[in-house]
Amino acid sequence: MKIIIDAMGGDHAPSAPVRAAVRAADELDVEIILVGRTEDIERELSESSYNKERISIVHADDVISNHEEPAKAVRSKKNASVVVAARMLSDGEGDAMLSMGNTGALLASGLLTVGRIKGVIRPALATLLPSAKGPKMLIDAGANTNCKPENLAQFAVMGSIYMKNVLGIKDPTVGLMSNGEEEGKGDELTKASFPLLKAAPVNFIGNIEGRDVMEGSADVIVCDGFVGNVILKTVEGMGHVVSDKVKGIFTNGLFTKLGALFVMNGLKEFKRTMDYREYGGAPLLGTKKPVIKGHGSSDAKAVFSAINQAKKFVETSVIDDIVNNISGMEEKSHD
Amino acid sequence: MKIIIDAMGGDHAPSAPVRAAVRAADELDVEIILVGRTEDIERELSESSYNKERISIVHADDVISNHEEPAKAVRSKKNASVVVAARMLSDGEGDAMLSMGNTGALLASGLLTVGRIKGVIRPALATLLPSAKGPKMLIDAGANTNCKPENLAQFAVMGSIYMKNVLGIKDPTVGLMSNGEEEGKGDELTKASFPLLKAAPVNFIGNIEGRDVMEGSADVIVCDGFVGNVILKTVEGMGHVVSDKVKGIFTNGLFTKLGALFVMNGLKEFKRTMDYREYGGAPLLGTKKPVIKGHGSSDAKAVFSAINQAKKFVETSVIDDIVNNISGMEEKSHD
Repeated sequence: MKIIIDAMGGDHAPSAPVRAAVRAADELDVEIILVGRTEDIERELSESSYNKERISIVHADDVISNHEEPAKAVRSKKNASVVVAARMLSDGEGDAMLSMGNTGALLASGLLTVGRIKGVIRPALATLLPSAKGPKMLIDAGANTNCKPENLAQFAVMGSIYMKNVLGIKDPTVGLMSNGEEEGKGDELTKASFPLLKAAPVNFIGNIEGRDVMEGSADVIVCDGFVGNVILKTVEGMGHVVSDKVKGIFTNGLFTKLGALFVMNGLKEFKRTMDYREYGGAPLLGTKKPVIKGHGSSDAKAVFSAINQAKKFVETSVIDDIVNNISGMEEKSHD
Repeated sequence: MKIIIDAMGGDHAPSAPVRAAVRAADELDVEIILVGRTEDIERELSESSYNKERISIVHADDVISNHEEPAKAVRSKKNASVVVAARMLSDGEGDAMLSMGNTGALLASGLLTVGRIKGVIRPALATLLPSAKGPKMLIDAGANTNCKPENLAQFAVMGSIYMKNVLGIKDPTVGLMSNGEEEGKGDELTKASFPLLKAAPVNFIGNIEGRDVMEGSADVIVCDGFVGNVILKTVEGMGHVVSDKVKGIFTNGLFTKLGALFVMNGLKEFKRTMDYREYGGAPLLGTKKPVIKGHGSSDAKAVFSAINQAKKFVETSVIDDIVNNISGMEEKSHD
């Protein structure tokens, strides 16, 4: 299996992607193609010994930064690392691609170059969030600002398939994010989506509320990309602030530092639960081949998690299942 | 000053409202009118000595529960405690009202019985949320599921006035909740609202994102009631889960219990930051007189905070300032 990595994307590029690639080539039984500026990548690679048969470099001159307008950058920079990576994936030179760079550029490349699965109206970004009951999926986490009910129904189907295949959850529950649990609650979009989710081939449990995100009441949380982005960033921001506060408790004076010694294991466990690095990347669901967005601030550990996740994505039948179930939905809607 | 309290609303009614009223009558220089079933209220009152000159009871036979459809219940139950309280406020028998009961019923009573300030299109529920930089306001936190740009502009003005008057924040900053910081980001509503917020008499700092909620980047966070409800409940839910986890760190075995002794003060401080009870209730802004929603799970301490907040609301010029600024906005839009 070959995984194509945009080596130039993310806050810690190329260091984090390259170091993660070295580790993955050792531990995961995968080949890695690093796409980006050869010189920069080689400089990073030279700092460690690595499996030369499993890691190769494909040169790409350009980089799309986080500040660029995505669609425009993807059109104009044909030799940007993320664009080259997507073209290679589309051409069959790899089995999955991963980028920690500009989210919009990755989405545009996935949509335009890798392409949609037939019947999928819009691919969606699916993020795993920590909860009291383990990782849960938020879909759409930001790919589609304006959605229709049909989009949300497809998100539910694609998200369920991923959670079943990659996370091994049997018959994952699906909740529709709303402002109340009762069926009548919601804005125009969620009210119109409710019956479609009910009819979709998923384990729909009805409307859920914001508090259900962290309580882990549903395995798949369905919403449009605007609401999903707000939820994702609210949770991330709160994670940072709370971690800082908890850390602060243990750094004020000698007594509390002593206290920290007593609770070291508990603290580590707490930190792990709140740590996005444990949860890999966010798959773009609905494209013909696996495309994964790693967190922009990913360190080597986080990129390694995302590579591992890409591998599971490829090994399981996510794409085939989406192909089969989405075409099934289409047929139903023509009945 | 007379504060009217729906003594029958909330998970801990009538105990919590009555006990809070007893304390407020002692400590806050306010008179309290408790509205609800006389027998139930008297039974609670009989359990403590209280200032009889400052606490009175107005009988109301009915109660609207959390499970009832609000608008219907308010129309059909003319003698429900919340409806009677709103009628009394409207008739000038008190200066502010507070309820911990059914949110929709309070909103409907506020809107229909207390009435809107001239020029206010829709009143909004404004909640204070904890952040790294102190309490910040989320408006609308759930009163209006579907909003227009003009609504959001008015929410910004009303929220700023409240933060200035009641929380003493000079020139409060206003952020528009969106899915990106750049001016062009957002869904249809936020894009159309951006220029109106820019033109409004507020200290508008542009779009903000979910992470800014807890980071406290804006004093007033403006959004529609659907998004606001999702944010509020996501934060509340995360607060519960995190508090449980942090508590869990200190209850696993003797060593960690010893650890807790060392960090007691820090832990208390942390808990206080995450504790909604410190932040009082959520004012409904845009009604002719102060209406405040207390959290449904409020204990006596939380109800006391909300009474204190109601007092500040009455003492300051929030209502007058809204009257003056909203009519100013109307005039501008006719230029």
